[in-house]
Amino acid sequence: MSELVGYVAAALTTISFVPQATRTACSRNTAGISLAMYLLFTSGAACWLAYGVLIGSWPVILSNAITCLLSCVILMLKLRHG
Amino acid sequence: MSELVGYVAAALTTISFVPQATRTACSRNTAGISLAMYLLFTSGAACWLAYGVLIGSWPVILSNAITCLLSCVILMLKLRHG
Repeated sequence: MSELVGYVAAALTTISFVPQATRTACSRNTAGISLAMYLLFTSGAACWLAYGVLIGSWPVILSNAITCLLSCVILMLKLRHG
Repeated sequence: MSELVGYVAAALTTISFVPQATRTACSRNTAGISLAMYLLFTSGAACWLAYGVLIGSWPVILSNAITCLLSCVILMLKLRHG
């Protein structure tokens, strides 16, 4: 039961960055997006990825590799069009 | 070592929502923010919180209680001013 809740949680928080990344990529509207948030969040996702590698957890590695990539895309768009 | 990386990761991803929540609360500019992202992310953070309760992990409970609250604030602002 707890495993299932954990996988649903990981899927939801990972997938959630897809609509933000596509919206920002299409609209170029980054005025409402916080640069500080994406600097901190991308660094955090990179740390989660490193943590996954250190503990040898593929679910942590995979979900955070995707999250880190999407967050990085939003960060780059903010730096370019912000 | 891995414990420290995990705590830094949790701190960064949790704190990252503070600047976005304050920026959105002050500017009321939610045009660039994706409603789908915050619907999915808030649900995901709530699932992480439930997962923390199920496995009895205080770091997971605390960090996701804060993240869920901040994400919920951004979601409410998006629904109100979007």
